[in-house]
Parts: sequence; C-alpha cells; structure tokens
Amino acid sequence: MAGGTYGARVSDTATAPPESHRDLLERPLCGHLATVRPDGAPQSNVMWFVWDGERLRFTHTDQRQKFRNLAENPRVAMSVPEPGNPYRYLEVRGVVEDISPDDADASFYRSLQERYGRPLPVRDAVHRVVITVRPTAFVAEG
Amino acid sequence: MAGGTYGARVSDTATAPPESHRDLLERPLCGHLATVRPDGAPQSNVMWFVWDGERLRFTHTDQRQKFRNLAENPRVAMSVPEPGNPYRYLEVRGVVEDISPDDADASFYRSLQERYGRPLPVRDAVHRVVITVRPTAFVAEG
Repeated sequence: MAGGTYGARVSDTATAPPESHRDLLERPLCGHLATVRPDGAPQSNVMWFVWDGERLRFTHTDQRQKFRNLAENPRVAMSVPEPGNPYRYLEVRGVVEDISPDDADASFYRSLQERYGRPLPVRDAVHRVVITVRPTAFVAEG
Repeated sequence: MAGGTYGARVSDTATAPPESHRDLLERPLCGHLATVRPDGAPQSNVMWFVWDGERLRFTHTDQRQKFRNLAENPRVAMSVPEPGNPYRYLEVRGVVEDISPDDADASFYRSLQERYGRPLPVRDAVHRVVITVRPTAFVAEG
C-alpha cells in the first residue's frame, strides 16, 4: 500500500498468482482495469472478469474507448481488492492476447452475468467481444 | 460498468466532480491509481488520497517505481469505488502538477495516516513526497 508501511509487505512477481492471493482471482470480485489511451494517458475502470487458471477474460463492447485503447496498446494492469479490506489486493499486469466477437447469444457475457449474479437483458450482443489477457506479472499486497 | 448495461448509466465529464459522486472523494476511501511505466505499460495500485476541492494529493516515497513513472509520464487516472458497491464509482483523470518533499516530520504523510485511522511509526520521512494532481476529467458510474 503506497500510503505507508504496514508491517510486512507481501509482494511477489511471477507467472502464476501467489497462493496467498489467488482467491481474489477466483471469487466474483470487481477489478480496476488500467488501460492506456492513444494519447498516452491512463484510464481506470471497474470491470468484471473471469480467471481460468492461466488467462483473464473480460466482456466488453466494441463501441467504447477502452476497446479502442486496447486495439492500439494491448498492455493492461488490473488491481482487485478484498471487499472490506482494500489494503489486501492483487495486481495483475498483462497483455491482450486476443479479442474475439462473443457468439450470437452473447454466451460469454451471459456467463459473466451469472458469475456476478446480475442477469439482465442483452441488447448489444452484436457488439459484445471477449478480451483475453495473458498475465505477465502478479504483485500481491497486504 | 463495463461488464454490462445496468439500466441508466450515469456519466459525467467535467472540471468539477459531479455532485452525485463527490462523497467518494471526500470520504477516506482507497483509490486505484493507474500510472504508466516508462515502457508504456500501465500499473494499478491502491492509494490513500486527500481532496481539497480542487486538487488530489497523495503521499509516496521517492524510492519506488510509481514515483519514477510519474517523473516520466505525469498523467494518472484513479477510480474510487463505493465500499460494498463497486458498481458505483468515480474515475478522476488528471496530471501531476507538483511533486515536493514532505517536511522533516512527514506532516502530510501523518495527516493521511490520521485521515485513514492508521497511525504508524514513520521510518522514511526523508523519502516522503507529496504528489499533487490537477484533475482534467471526472467520470461517474452507477
């Protein structure tokens, strides 16, 4: 935590998430996704995600700025805080490996709605894409 | 929320925070600060901050990567979620206007410890800096 020195600082950079913080990827939590805009300025947005043990996947539409950012600069970072204790969090840095259209039913988007307990009518299936991120580093804090 | 379409999407871009989300800057909440590393990749870290009505201020040491990032690329973005409801959040984008040493007692750092209710011994006063960010845009979600 950049605010100060809170006893031992757990920190790990590796190609697999540290055991101590893996739950933050497996639970249906919200991540704060940093992307870089074409002018070099960062952007930070709350995102759903799913972790399959090797890759992060996000649902998005192809209509918004974040999609355009990723088309130009595929590097991302996401920090996922423990609900109720933001001092414990996992940062995942990575690279967009693939952006593909969701299927006609927006099945991937619907699977995330289910994961997060928020089923809603899908009105933008034709614009839904699946963004796959390959992690390059994990940094655990707290 | 980039995960989906949750009814009306509140969104506002302006030079002052939208009234509806100003509390997220005034309360002692943790922000997720996106900075850009010298190689162009983003980084996302949980940070304390204080808002004086016009500027965001952060405490940091001059010893870490985030400080070096800001020296090279002063643009930042911070998303601050409502505790218990990450779908309601405020994103502040801005530019680092000033980085100055904290005083010999690390008074600014101590004032943030007090704001966040975490008084701790200060062992790095000589390295503590105050980072001042001028907002350029506010985006309210949820």
